[in-house]
Amino acid sequence: MTARWFPLVSGTRVLAAVGLIGGLVAAQGSAPASSTSWLDALRTDAARLIQLATRDDFAWQRLATLTDTFGHRPPASDNMARAVAWAVETMKADGLENVRAEPVMVPNWVRGAESAEILEPGRHAVSVLGLGGTVATPPGGLEAEVVAVTSFSELRARAAEVKGRIVLFDVPYSTYSETVAYRTGGARAAAEVGAVAVLIRSVGPMGLRTPHTGSVQYAPGRTGIPALGLAAEDANRIARLSASGRRVRMRLVTSGHHGPPVASANVVGEIVGRERPEEIVLVGGHLDSWDVGTGASDDAVGCVVTWEALRLMKRLGLRPRRTVRVVLWTNEEHGLAGANAYAERYAATASNHVLALEADSGVFAPATLGFSGSLAARLVMAQIGTLLTPLGLQDIGAGGGGADIGPIVQAGNVPALAYLGDPSRYFVIHHTAADTVERIAPDEVSKAAAAIAVVAYVAAEMPERLPR
Amino acid sequence: MTARWFPLVSGTRVLAAVGLIGGLVAAQGSAPASSTSWLDALRTDAARLIQLATRDDFAWQRLATLTDTFGHRPPASDNMARAVAWAVETMKADGLENVRAEPVMVPNWVRGAESAEILEPGRHAVSVLGLGGTVATPPGGLEAEVVAVTSFSELRARAAEVKGRIVLFDVPYSTYSETVAYRTGGARAAAEVGAVAVLIRSVGPMGLRTPHTGSVQYAPGRTGIPALGLAAEDANRIARLSASGRRVRMRLVTSGHHGPPVASANVVGEIVGRERPEEIVLVGGHLDSWDVGTGASDDAVGCVVTWEALRLMKRLGLRPRRTVRVVLWTNEEHGLAGANAYAERYAATASNHVLALEADSGVFAPATLGFSGSLAARLVMAQIGTLLTPLGLQDIGAGGGGADIGPIVQAGNVPALAYLGDPSRYFVIHHTAADTVERIAPDEVSKAAAAIAVVAYVAAEMPERLPR
Repeated sequence: MTARWFPLVSGTRVLAAVGLIGGLVAAQGSAPASSTSWLDALRTDAARLIQLATRDDFAWQRLATLTDTFGHRPPASDNMARAVAWAVETMKADGLENVRAEPVMVPNWVRGAESAEILEPGRHAVSVLGLGGTVATPPGGLEAEVVAVTSFSELRARAAEVKGRIVLFDVPYSTYSETVAYRTGGARAAAEVGAVAVLIRSVGPMGLRTPHTGSVQYAPGRTGIPALGLAAEDANRIARLSASGRRVRMRLVTSGHHGPPVASANVVGEIVGRERPEEIVLVGGHLDSWDVGTGASDDAVGCVVTWEALRLMKRLGLRPRRTVRVVLWTNEEHGLAGANAYAERYAATASNHVLALEADSGVFAPATLGFSGSLAARLVMAQIGTLLTPLGLQDIGAGGGGADIGPIVQAGNVPALAYLGDPSRYFVIHHTAADTVERIAPDEVSKAAAAIAVVAYVAAEMPERLPR
Repeated sequence: MTARWFPLVSGTRVLAAVGLIGGLVAAQGSAPASSTSWLDALRTDAARLIQLATRDDFAWQRLATLTDTFGHRPPASDNMARAVAWAVETMKADGLENVRAEPVMVPNWVRGAESAEILEPGRHAVSVLGLGGTVATPPGGLEAEVVAVTSFSELRARAAEVKGRIVLFDVPYSTYSETVAYRTGGARAAAEVGAVAVLIRSVGPMGLRTPHTGSVQYAPGRTGIPALGLAAEDANRIARLSASGRRVRMRLVTSGHHGPPVASANVVGEIVGRERPEEIVLVGGHLDSWDVGTGASDDAVGCVVTWEALRLMKRLGLRPRRTVRVVLWTNEEHGLAGANAYAERYAATASNHVLALEADSGVFAPATLGFSGSLAARLVMAQIGTLLTPLGLQDIGAGGGGADIGPIVQAGNVPALAYLGDPSRYFVIHHTAADTVERIAPDEVSKAAAAIAVVAYVAAEMPERLPR
């Protein structure tokens, strides 16, 4: 998941939204008989999809194969190119239709050697990760005193102290949506008041001296300053030393570079609709990842569980009325090139997308589906949600959408779903070396695949198109 | 804590031992009246020590100052030398007596650049830490295929496959005492059957892609092979790839070197006994640490809480009958030079040590005191333990001793205590970069200081010497 999209809902607000849907259904009396009967006709298929998805750990094993074999997958990397080729080949072997790699040019930032050290008081290495796309320090590194602040407003208040110094944004993690602004915008704000580099307390709950990476956004047309994520413990230490009146001097080294853009691809597979093939139910995740960990939760698992939706239908011989399309996007993390290319390529048919679902928040239990659409659509989605009861998921709440489906959703005014794993587990490992397959339980993967398969199948099969 | 000593008790066995003491007291009837009256006479002082220790976070703040200012403290490092000087100066400021730094020559292994990478299938960096004292790889690293085994017996059974290869000991963590044998002895066993290097699945519960270091022991008189600790997730990944029939080739780089030995020191402070100054109650921890994290739980906290025992007595104006001595040992981790030097220096007076207490297992709640001594001593210790009731600690069980007090305990047949933090929390961060002060709650430090102060004071003040 990148910084550009995140569900603007907390657990409380999801529950409120669920309550809203329930209240609306109640206010309108029971659903029309026709609605009930179309849904009833799909109950057996929904149950079969759930049964097939949850009977073994096929999806988890595929996730392990993907992440073990290819590791992390920066968009321009060999690992990503090999993962794209494997996905195309494996989708074909699954029997998906119109399987193709749709070319996308992607940026090519490559991390170099990195280190950071407290020089005074006492020498001590600290745990850092350059933010994705950071400019490099001078060869040999950059030395300066550190000014620790806890907010943008403290930075402004202390602007006179900052010139020539390293700014540490020591902002305790609350939620991703609240804290990520410092990772994306901290470098720009610090540069404006004369800082020579910026350290960002990692955006996530405290781990085990675990730095988080993620994108940094510089002011357009200006050279940025080096920007590194710092483990929470090291941020604490610098803040304690500063608070006790000690001068903290550091040396930072980061040495990434931008190579020429590279041709990558979105991987696309379909089950072509039997009656209205031009109408599309779109599901997907992103195949690229940051260059740490193996990008298992961000977002190999989103690729696997959405792809599974089609594989499960194929295995059961289900060909719904409309087309179901899975897209494994490239370069979600570093500029959304794949998402934008998809929206451009399908601009003329954007409004043919009847539903778009993105899985890019992990699958950690307790998971939920979030939906964004009109009132009429929400009422139908609440009915579809009743088919998921055997999975023990929460009711479908608010918060649909995602970074990769964003452009096509906007272009076509498409109702949008998101599969949302528990954020308290997801953000511990998000954009870290610890984003690996062992954190994810097989039944969490199977449940996500089952839920997405049911929702996608029903949206593709139901007699009436899902209301806008 | 090093590999050479660890409490050979599980929680269950501690409880059994507690039951044993209880049973023995019951079998002998109530304790002699004289015992009860001497203990009653000390209750007020014990309560004052507890009250002073637990009224604020002084001990935690001292721990933060030590670890923030000096960071990790390999025995031959500048950080350690500065920490020794600070401890001497600060003990004097506390009013301790006979404060001195007793010189000890220590080995001087310095970690160099390290990395490890899977080359086939796919290139991927893995998370390693060279074991302390490992020989270096050739410049540029070492490349070989990996053979993953789960035990010494599997290594022997597959000895024919190992020649020229890297052995991965993928041994799941159970307890430290069961698993650490692979870290200390794995390199030797693998070298004997022709391996060129060894990777040890880190000895601890799975963290966040967290490698653990610790000492490696080579066969005497033979050149060892490079030995690195590997994060559990990476061990899993290699094992999964191997199990699926994939050839796994890796490149390992480790480049530490041994410099000439360096003069370090044990730091010693005392409260001289008012009646029997020649009788010593010894308490302490080790000031050195591995060169990752800040050695907060291993073992800055052991130094602070044992030192606190003396500072608290001093603050209350308590000068017990016998001498209480705190020793902050040097080089526990890499050869026990400080412990051996202490035992040599005080060989003639070893039997004057009436009790020795080591704090080198963290202070994580729920903590307990472990004791090793004769039946008579255990009965007295069970009585002393009743003074700790206000702290909510478990009863004093079995498992006294420690690596640093080991030599003097053996030389003098000294009854031995250990302060034992919860191992499930301790071994997650043991010998890792995540061993920092933020994991330790202030009240855990205060409780440990209080308990150690009470036990040390009572052992120093009680009319009769604690039975051998």
